[in-house]
Amino acid sequence: MLTSENDSLLARYRFACSLAESGGKLAYEFYQQRDSLQTLHKGSDLQDVVSRADCEVESFVKSRIAEAFPNDGFLGEESGTADEGKSVLWVVDPIDGTSCFLNGLHTWCFSLAIVIDGEPVIGVVYDPNHHELFHACKGQGAWLNDQQISPHPATTVAGGVMGVGTSHRVSTEDFLPFLDQLLQHGGMFVRNGSGALMSAWAAAGRLIGYYEPHMNPWDGLPGIVLMREAGGITNDYLAAEGIARGNVVLLASEKIYPQLKQWVKQPLL
Amino acid sequence: MLTSENDSLLARYRFACSLAESGGKLAYEFYQQRDSLQTLHKGSDLQDVVSRADCEVESFVKSRIAEAFPNDGFLGEESGTADEGKSVLWVVDPIDGTSCFLNGLHTWCFSLAIVIDGEPVIGVVYDPNHHELFHACKGQGAWLNDQQISPHPATTVAGGVMGVGTSHRVSTEDFLPFLDQLLQHGGMFVRNGSGALMSAWAAAGRLIGYYEPHMNPWDGLPGIVLMREAGGITNDYLAAEGIARGNVVLLASEKIYPQLKQWVKQPLL
Repeated sequence: MLTSENDSLLARYRFACSLAESGGKLAYEFYQQRDSLQTLHKGSDLQDVVSRADCEVESFVKSRIAEAFPNDGFLGEESGTADEGKSVLWVVDPIDGTSCFLNGLHTWCFSLAIVIDGEPVIGVVYDPNHHELFHACKGQGAWLNDQQISPHPATTVAGGVMGVGTSHRVSTEDFLPFLDQLLQHGGMFVRNGSGALMSAWAAAGRLIGYYEPHMNPWDGLPGIVLMREAGGITNDYLAAEGIARGNVVLLASEKIYPQLKQWVKQPLL
Repeated sequence: MLTSENDSLLARYRFACSLAESGGKLAYEFYQQRDSLQTLHKGSDLQDVVSRADCEVESFVKSRIAEAFPNDGFLGEESGTADEGKSVLWVVDPIDGTSCFLNGLHTWCFSLAIVIDGEPVIGVVYDPNHHELFHACKGQGAWLNDQQISPHPATTVAGGVMGVGTSHRVSTEDFLPFLDQLLQHGGMFVRNGSGALMSAWAAAGRLIGYYEPHMNPWDGLPGIVLMREAGGITNDYLAAEGIARGNVVLLASEKIYPQLKQWVKQPLL
C-alpha cells in the first residue's frame, strides 16, 4: 500500500479529475474536426475503429501520469500494459464510445479508474460534450461536477430506464434474454454506445442501472467505483482475473440489483 | 391542394423551422429546471410520463400555427386532433423522448411534420441540447442546420451503427428477433430514447438506418420526410391509416434498406 495512504489517494483523485477534463477536452478538439480524421480498422470488426484521437489522447495522459506518479502502472485501451503487477494501476480509455465519436453521436467520454492493491478506488468519467465530470473516490461519495449523486429511487424495473450494452465479444444469447426479461417486466432501456458513460448515468440516478455481458477494465471499472460510492451495488468486477480478461458488469441501486441479477446468466460474484 | 402551391409550401417550411427552434428552446428552459417539474403518469405505463413542459410547449406551438395558418389542421401528442380531414395537417410532438427529458438524458427533441393531402412533405427535428436543426421539405433536400445531409455510405449492416426503438405498445416478438438478426450479421445498435431524433441522425448519415415496430405519427413522420429528401428509402408510413393508428417505421439508405427489410415482420408497403 502507499506510504502515506490517504494523502496519496486524494492526490491521485485530484489529479485524475483534472486529467480527465484535460484529456476529454483534447478529444473534443478532434471531435469537432472528425470528418477529416484518418481512421484505422482493428481486425475485421468495422465497429471497433480507432482514431488518431484515441491514440493521441492516450499518449498525452500516459505521459502526464508518468511525470506525476513515476512508480505507478498504466493500462490503456490502445497501448495495453506491462504493469499489471504494480501496486497502483491507472486504467484509461481515452474515448469510450469510439463509434459514437466517429459517427457524430454526442455520447462518448473519457474514462479512467485507479486500482490499488487489487481494489478499484477511484473512478472518473468526463463527458466533454456536456461538461459533465462524474467522479468518485473510496470513502468520498460520488459526484457529478460539484453535486453529490445517488442511484435512481425506482423500486421496480418499470420505474425508470435501464442502460444496457453489448459487443461482438459475446453471443446474442448472453444479451437478448436479459433484454427480453427487462421488457417483459415493464422495463425500458437505452444503449448510447458508451458503457462507461451509461454506468456513470446510473450512479447519478439518470438510469436505474447498467448491464453488459462483458466489459474491458478501462470501460467497466470507473462505473464500479462510481456506483459503489453513490450507495448502490455492483458485482465484484475484479474477481476471476477481471483486470486481464474483463468481466460482466451489473450495477444498480440496492432495490433494483436483486431483480436484475436473476436475469444475468454469468456468475456474479 | 393549396392555391399557390409552392409558395405556400415554402412559407410553411420556413415557419416550421423557426417554430421548431422556438418550441425546442422553450422546452430546454424547462429541462434546465427539470428536478422541480410536476409529472403526471399516463395510465399505468410509468415510462410514458408527460410533464408540464410537454403541455406548455404544445400549447405554444399550436397557438402560433393557428395565428399564422388559421385554416390548417393540428395533430399533437398531448392534445390530439379533430382536424384529420383538413388538407394541411401539422403534426407535432413537443418533446419526443420524454423519459430522457425527465431523467436528464440529453437525447430528446422537438419533432414536427406537415402532411398535405395525405402526403408528408415537411419534416423538422430540433435538438436544443446540441443546437441541431434537421429539416427537409419535398423537393428541397434534407439539411442539418445549413449543411445538406445524406445517408450513411455503409454497404452492409456491419459498416455502421443502426438506430432502433420499441415501446410497450408492441410485443418483444416484434422487436427482439430484428435485433438478433442485426447482431448476428455483425451489426450494432443504439437506442437513445427518441425515435424522431434517431431517424434524423439516420438521414444525416450518423446511423445506417432506423427501425421501430410502431411509431405514432408525431414521432414517425419527420424522419420519413428527412430520409426521403436525404436520398434514402422509407416504408409508406401513411398507408393503412397510419395517421390515425401509427405504423412501423423502417428507413435507411438504398443499399441498406433491402437488408433490413427482410428482418421486419410487419408488412412494409
